[in-house]
Amino acid sequence: MPIQFEIIAQDKVTRARAGLLHTPHGAVETPVFMPVGTGGTVKGLRQEELEALGVQILLANTYHLYLRPGHELIRDAGGLHRFMAWPRPILTDSGGFQVMSLKSLGRVTEDGVWFRSHLDGSTHFLSPERAVEIQLALGADIIMTLDECVEYPASHQTLQRAVSLTTRWAERSKQAFARGSGFGVRDSGIGARDSCFGIGNSDLSSQLRADPKSLTPSPEPRVPSPESRTPSPESRVPSPALFGIVQGGTDKELRRQSAEALLGLDFEGYALGGLSVGEPKSEMYDVAEFTADLLPRERPRYLMGVGTPEDLVEGVARGIDMFDCVMPTRNARNACAFTSEGKVILKNARWARDERPLDPACGCAVCRRYSRAYLRHLFVTGEMLGAVLATHHNLHFYLDTMRKIRQSLVFGEFAEFHSRVRVQH
Amino acid sequence: MPIQFEIIAQDKVTRARAGLLHTPHGAVETPVFMPVGTGGTVKGLRQEELEALGVQILLANTYHLYLRPGHELIRDAGGLHRFMAWPRPILTDSGGFQVMSLKSLGRVTEDGVWFRSHLDGSTHFLSPERAVEIQLALGADIIMTLDECVEYPASHQTLQRAVSLTTRWAERSKQAFARGSGFGVRDSGIGARDSCFGIGNSDLSSQLRADPKSLTPSPEPRVPSPESRTPSPESRVPSPALFGIVQGGTDKELRRQSAEALLGLDFEGYALGGLSVGEPKSEMYDVAEFTADLLPRERPRYLMGVGTPEDLVEGVARGIDMFDCVMPTRNARNACAFTSEGKVILKNARWARDERPLDPACGCAVCRRYSRAYLRHLFVTGEMLGAVLATHHNLHFYLDTMRKIRQSLVFGEFAEFHSRVRVQH
Repeated sequence: MPIQFEIIAQDKVTRARAGLLHTPHGAVETPVFMPVGTGGTVKGLRQEELEALGVQILLANTYHLYLRPGHELIRDAGGLHRFMAWPRPILTDSGGFQVMSLKSLGRVTEDGVWFRSHLDGSTHFLSPERAVEIQLALGADIIMTLDECVEYPASHQTLQRAVSLTTRWAERSKQAFARGSGFGVRDSGIGARDSCFGIGNSDLSSQLRADPKSLTPSPEPRVPSPESRTPSPESRVPSPALFGIVQGGTDKELRRQSAEALLGLDFEGYALGGLSVGEPKSEMYDVAEFTADLLPRERPRYLMGVGTPEDLVEGVARGIDMFDCVMPTRNARNACAFTSEGKVILKNARWARDERPLDPACGCAVCRRYSRAYLRHLFVTGEMLGAVLATHHNLHFYLDTMRKIRQSLVFGEFAEFHSRVRVQH
Repeated sequence: MPIQFEIIAQDKVTRARAGLLHTPHGAVETPVFMPVGTGGTVKGLRQEELEALGVQILLANTYHLYLRPGHELIRDAGGLHRFMAWPRPILTDSGGFQVMSLKSLGRVTEDGVWFRSHLDGSTHFLSPERAVEIQLALGADIIMTLDECVEYPASHQTLQRAVSLTTRWAERSKQAFARGSGFGVRDSGIGARDSCFGIGNSDLSSQLRADPKSLTPSPEPRVPSPESRTPSPESRVPSPALFGIVQGGTDKELRRQSAEALLGLDFEGYALGGLSVGEPKSEMYDVAEFTADLLPRERPRYLMGVGTPEDLVEGVARGIDMFDCVMPTRNARNACAFTSEGKVILKNARWARDERPLDPACGCAVCRRYSRAYLRHLFVTGEMLGAVLATHHNLHFYLDTMRKIRQSLVFGEFAEFHSRVRVQH
């Protein structure tokens, strides 16, 4: 059965809604923030810590994993979930965004995109079919179509061309997915290698690694589930899903053309691409709202690469269900923390003797134990632990923000929550 | 009351013994391995992870903390325990070893040692009195005297001079300690700052940070105690202890002179310095045994900067109670893991598709969850998580080795354990 999306609450004032997205590796409560685990790791955090933080779904980058360690190695290891010992859902991007960001290294043709590896300069080709094939090999729960993402600002002609190409690629992706789905990691016959496992223990994560069947759909989910994670009505595990990506920059007419063409192909979810690429924030919100309105109510909507904590609230108010962004993790490594009192630059000399926690309003493991003075000391002396702790806190801040958003939706108080956040900003 | 050392088991064949070392922050089961937390952090691991690993006592480097963030800042923050949120015992070195290792930067005089900061070239002076003062400001449970550590090989004259100077410095240290003890961090009046803490929560670690009294001796230890950690018979918490350091290189006559001079000063513990500096291993073991035999049975013996897992077993067999070494943590960061099957170089291409855990015989959190293939991928791609996970495993390996050693002592089976290890090596 295809991926299934249930809407369980709809705000009366805004377009915000709360839902449940069922995937092969369990259900995801939406709206959801997906931390970025580029190369099969959220930099600095262990998978058990991500679980404890309440991360429901990770984003991994196809481009990076394709180059190292290679999608075939990951497929042969039983897929990315097993390779990185992560039992919950994974969404992979198509690889196109990275390839095209590497400017001089990428060349877009009708067939696909040629690029050079940033590691060794070797030449590679990524087509819509290849992007699907790689993501199926990785064993992702949600697979993205290859799209052409253009810079901001771009001419109408450039945008038009990108929309047309993205549409044709979406059609080819859909066909490739239909052919390839069912031939991904779950059927790759990994049983033979399992005599290697000799450790007896009872924790679920090890079972994931030790038991080939854990990657085969089964009616009993192995992942510890929050109460809301109920089996789908038919008690069947969904197959991976393919999401289409709406392009068109800030041009509403092009956004409409793009959305309509994709709707004709009937994807299981729709992403908004080409936003948060430099356009003014008000325009981003406006185009996100306009585009979300074009999409079917009963399918999940994913705003790619967005954004700040404020963007999460504003995005949800405009009908967005899914977000990803490197901001909480990358900023953390650069000693910038998100707190209830705004950003805190952790290297700042003013914290040298500050014994308060990073965020007095935060209950995360870092704020419960460590002081600003200690965190500053770690960053000033270049200690790894600084990045580890700041990443933990920032992810907690993002995930907690999203939990508050969802809770307000479930209790019918989102509009109030939304206006309170607006006043603060 | 002074620090107290109880011997609870003595091997019948070798010099090995198991004990309990009572410190201001709780009791330490000996023999013990002390991980190195140079700048107030064991690189890559959180303090809660160190607790979970069963780390009983940390070593911190006075030289590094003196330069950054400064011992006065740490004293004002309530001491190193509170600054780094570590509730268990801490041993600090004197700073001398680092200063003298920086060769061109250090100059030894009768008064002490002049050195330049490796950070900014500024000039500093470390005397025996100053080393004690800094360590008291840090609030260490065990304080080391400043000694002169010479390179291997060294002439008899050089060794003789170093022993004499170390003896004179030991006497000055002892006097400074007698004057300064009681004026350390525990009486620095940190209560005033505590109105800053507004988070209510019940975990012990936070209490450490939130409650100034947690750094004041109290009959009720706040640190979760293994069963063996009983209050001392008089139900009083010990004060910090000062350890003397025996020098003399590989010259037994000089070792005897050094030990006898220090015994006259009556230290609460004795360290063996100037070993593991390049001499052959057999000579190191021989001198350690010879020197340990010169020391009083009822005082703890600490073999500084040693060593490999094998060295722990051999050291214990020669009557050593305490060890520290950067090897498990530094090697981990360089992708070298200690396992029951020997060293594993994690970047090696042969592990690229190896789904087995790092050490099939290991029950640590890393071996229970992650594969060699994943660890290799993390190191090859330069991901921080590689160092984090390898450090966790290596420390577990060291601590587990020491737990096995102690258990064999308690059950009267050390000699058998010892000979089994010898056969393996």
